[in-house]
Amino acid sequence: MNEKLKGVFAPITTPFDEDGAFSVKKLEFNIQKYAITNIAGYLVLGSNGENKSLSSNEKEEVIKTVIANKSAGQVVMVGSIFESTRDTIEFALKSEELGADFITLLPPSYFKGIMTDSILIKYFTDVADAINTPCLMYNAPQFAGGVSISLNVIKQCSKHPNIVGIKDSSSGNIEKTILSIDSENFDVLSGSANTFLSALLHGATGGVISLADSLPNLVVKLYRYVMDGDIKKAVELNKKILRANYVISGEYGVAGVKTAMDIEGYCGGAPRLPLLPLEEEGVNKLRKILKDIELDKL
Amino acid sequence: MNEKLKGVFAPITTPFDEDGAFSVKKLEFNIQKYAITNIAGYLVLGSNGENKSLSSNEKEEVIKTVIANKSAGQVVMVGSIFESTRDTIEFALKSEELGADFITLLPPSYFKGIMTDSILIKYFTDVADAINTPCLMYNAPQFAGGVSISLNVIKQCSKHPNIVGIKDSSSGNIEKTILSIDSENFDVLSGSANTFLSALLHGATGGVISLADSLPNLVVKLYRYVMDGDIKKAVELNKKILRANYVISGEYGVAGVKTAMDIEGYCGGAPRLPLLPLEEEGVNKLRKILKDIELDKL
Amino acid sequence: MNEKLKGVFAPITTPFDEDGAFSVKKLEFNIQKYAITNIAGYLVLGSNGENKSLSSNEKEEVIKTVIANKSAGQVVMVGSIFESTRDTIEFALKSEELGADFITLLPPSYFKGIMTDSILIKYFTDVADAINTPCLMYNAPQFAGGVSISLNVIKQCSKHPNIVGIKDSSSGNIEKTILSIDSENFDVLSGSANTFLSALLHGATGGVISLADSLPNLVVKLYRYVMDGDIKKAVELNKKILRANYVISGEYGVAGVKTAMDIEGYCGGAPRLPLLPLEEEGVNKLRKILKDIELDKL
Amino acid sequence: MNEKLKGVFAPITTPFDEDGAFSVKKLEFNIQKYAITNIAGYLVLGSNGENKSLSSNEKEEVIKTVIANKSAGQVVMVGSIFESTRDTIEFALKSEELGADFITLLPPSYFKGIMTDSILIKYFTDVADAINTPCLMYNAPQFAGGVSISLNVIKQCSKHPNIVGIKDSSSGNIEKTILSIDSENFDVLSGSANTFLSALLHGATGGVISLADSLPNLVVKLYRYVMDGDIKKAVELNKKILRANYVISGEYGVAGVKTAMDIEGYCGGAPRLPLLPLEEEGVNKLRKILKDIELDKL
Repeated sequence: MNEKLKGVFAPITTPFDEDGAFSVKKLEFNIQKYAITNIAGYLVLGSNGENKSLSSNEKEEVIKTVIANKSAGQVVMVGSIFESTRDTIEFALKSEELGADFITLLPPSYFKGIMTDSILIKYFTDVADAINTPCLMYNAPQFAGGVSISLNVIKQCSKHPNIVGIKDSSSGNIEKTILSIDSENFDVLSGSANTFLSALLHGATGGVISLADSLPNLVVKLYRYVMDGDIKKAVELNKKILRANYVISGEYGVAGVKTAMDIEGYCGGAPRLPLLPLEEEGVNKLRKILKDIELDKL
Repeated sequence: MNEKLKGVFAPITTPFDEDGAFSVKKLEFNIQKYAITNIAGYLVLGSNGENKSLSSNEKEEVIKTVIANKSAGQVVMVGSIFESTRDTIEFALKSEELGADFITLLPPSYFKGIMTDSILIKYFTDVADAINTPCLMYNAPQFAGGVSISLNVIKQCSKHPNIVGIKDSSSGNIEKTILSIDSENFDVLSGSANTFLSALLHGATGGVISLADSLPNLVVKLYRYVMDGDIKKAVELNKKILRANYVISGEYGVAGVKTAMDIEGYCGGAPRLPLLPLEEEGVNKLRKILKDIELDKL
Repeated sequence: MNEKLKGVFAPITTPFDEDGAFSVKKLEFNIQKYAITNIAGYLVLGSNGENKSLSSNEKEEVIKTVIANKSAGQVVMVGSIFESTRDTIEFALKSEELGADFITLLPPSYFKGIMTDSILIKYFTDVADAINTPCLMYNAPQFAGGVSISLNVIKQCSKHPNIVGIKDSSSGNIEKTILSIDSENFDVLSGSANTFLSALLHGATGGVISLADSLPNLVVKLYRYVMDGDIKKAVELNKKILRANYVISGEYGVAGVKTAMDIEGYCGGAPRLPLLPLEEEGVNKLRKILKDIELDKL
Repeated sequence: MNEKLKGVFAPITTPFDEDGAFSVKKLEFNIQKYAITNIAGYLVLGSNGENKSLSSNEKEEVIKTVIANKSAGQVVMVGSIFESTRDTIEFALKSEELGADFITLLPPSYFKGIMTDSILIKYFTDVADAINTPCLMYNAPQFAGGVSISLNVIKQCSKHPNIVGIKDSSSGNIEKTILSIDSENFDVLSGSANTFLSALLHGATGGVISLADSLPNLVVKLYRYVMDGDIKKAVELNKKILRANYVISGEYGVAGVKTAMDIEGYCGGAPRLPLLPLEEEGVNKLRKILKDIELDKL
């Protein structure tokens, strides 16, 4: 088990100004606030980071800002999410140069009809061969046009010395991956509050959990209960986390995650179009939900 | 009916050198060859153009090269395919400046779970409002993570003065769109040989047909048979076109389209990774198929 | 080409009394009316026949009634649609005894996850081996839990002497099947107005068209235009047929087909629960649509 | 919480003789063996029971045999799975007469395109109104053509006094159902080993687990560990159960469940065609897996 992959990671969002421009200041503010929480690190430029809506310059700026403001021990995973092997490697190398600890790789999916196991294995392998930073596969069929990373692909890639784990955000069977890939050099992280507790129980090393964007210490609390074997408390807390997550992220997506951040004192703001910010009704719903779990935050 | 949307359009591919770099020279060669065929124009930076695997600079270079080498009357549609409204508009404006006649718009699909009709209508409308060049919607759920443009969206958007048509590459029911949208200012183009003949019979104005990349005049011949009411000849030719297309594009995708171009004297070459070029067996299969329809080419 | 598979077939509905009991009388009335139309025959106990909502006794009664009241030359296809090979054969043999000309077979789909090509080939072959009546495969993924009959299965089964064709009701690519299976002993029938015209042009022998339940001669008229090479008239009529079909069957399903029958003087009535009959608004919509194509009926 | 819905239920299979006939004797043998285990009861005529491959007479015979041979306290759920409301009620009433404790209802799915929430609510309500035996909804999109019972349907139906719970066999989010439906008169049962442990932790009352067909006491052991709060032991055992289940049921389905029963001393045998029994390789694989967990059985 890789010590750097243990714990709770925040899949951070990208804050914009009112005119829609990326705001370094707001991101600095957020990271400085996260730096004094108990989260183990960050997923930068993931789905909640609106990766696909950022320019190359903005992406670089985001990475630099995170690395400059995080606490020393916090780990940085960077999403290098592109349709071509070429672009993926190029950006992964840039991220490496800027100090990324891990590169996260989503399967290409534009031509999803031909994304066979062998094409995906070659894709992950080509990237992992070309860079020095260890790679994590990112399984999220909901964001990859339905392309799922099969257990066969995971098994093959887990043998590669530079592919060290997978972040599984699918609703499927993360326990199956954990129990099937029993390698010392390959870790599984949950990518969703929906599977986090059960994944931890069965051997996941940690989780990249969007609720940690607004309530980092609360998610860490859940993690610690499980590590301490206090499952009763873990389940009680998890029920509250799930109820909140079903609405914040499940119902509203990135816009919900950002609004929850606003409510909890971070700079969330609006997503970029075509994504729309929450209307007042949604904001109030989130306000109520977050109030309900406030007492558990400490 | 828009005169500029009549006829056969080639959804051109992007040629690369052996080291994978974009080759202006090869593209010039192709366009100069297409310029003396009977095709009505080009879809530039579409799916067969490997849009998502090109850098911003390469995209600009592609547009410039097409416009500099096409024949005077040929029409240029440019794909502006991005996840954010912001990027879509920015690139559409750039294409407009470079001389595009139409902008083609694929629905964003990364967050496909929230791509509701109202989000898509706002997306197409926002882009169409921001630019002067007329827009075509591009319906291709196979390349948009399963996101389909519903008839409701088409109906709403067809009323916008700057949304002038749709290129439908879905396997579904193009006739339904044609018969449901009976507007003088909105045209339907087939985006697949599979539906081209039937679409033309029911009122489509033309087609963007990948077989036209390798056999432009053959596809135009089919179009003219239909226009001339010579359906018997059209059907006989269409049977050959379909049999070829099922293998070239249906079985092999972009790599097949490029190999067919190689065989027919254009610069096809290999696609960018993770797409792989055809192996010898595939090349031979295409060689045989293309030989079979050679006599019909003239 | 099998002479018996040429022309237009009506996928007849099953009429019920107000208390929901199957009405022999109403079915007699319908068949006697169809007997003096120009349709080539019937699909009995298909999807529009609410096959899955009928008891064994009712099914037998339906077959007997059709055979006793049809005209001498009209052909009878009977759906034997079950999950087990055993039940399929048993009912096919009963239908054979009662005088069916063809047996129509939908793939089992309850355990759709394991309905591989080889399982389906064995299923169709086992049934075709066990009976004397020629079999038609029935491709309708929309009614078979998404299970589609692949081209590979069609190719293998088309070699069986007792599997003589396929009724394709999918929205996909019926032309591909027609052009790929070029056997003298295997015919393709369109199972939807949506593909009927194009299928006929490319070599289909006929169609099983739900609009023929209410407007049999109108659909035959379309068929004859195509056979006579009068494609211009065929297309003009087809536009009207499609517009009607998009609403009657496309929007309302079996309940719509039955209401259209009521309007046109057949005994349609309500489907069995959980299917609901049309509300007044839908009935009026259909009334209007059918009035619009009335002039073409003769 | 309904006391009768607590614990582990076996979704029993239907044994056949070598000629394919249903074997009362073998079923008697199985039930007499289950009667002295610790399982709380049975799901009779569910998916593993090959419901859709049995005749009406066979179904009755199965119910009678179970009821005559079970132990006094064991509970009997019977699947009444049909496409029409009429047939569902008729068979539910027959099951009631024969002594069923609960009726299990899968959504109709032949016409899946129109299975809206309101149609499903009316279906479940109509059946629950017409019978005295309490009903359980059965959510298994994999066996219902992709039709899933939405949370909205569950919420509405949970208010009906005679709809007392849901058996959820989907891979999705059973915790969401448990946490969303917080009613004293509505229970959630897991329908899959994949979700059983986590479901129990979050408030499910029990599970209908196919591994209980071959290893009933082992699954009960897991249930008891959870009830006793001994989560560490529960998780260790669950890892073994999951590894076995991924192969037995996950890879091989009903045929695998039956082979596992054979190995463990029950009468499994072959499923009905088109389902095929395991080949020798599969049998050996299961033998090995079951040997591995043998020590945990006691």
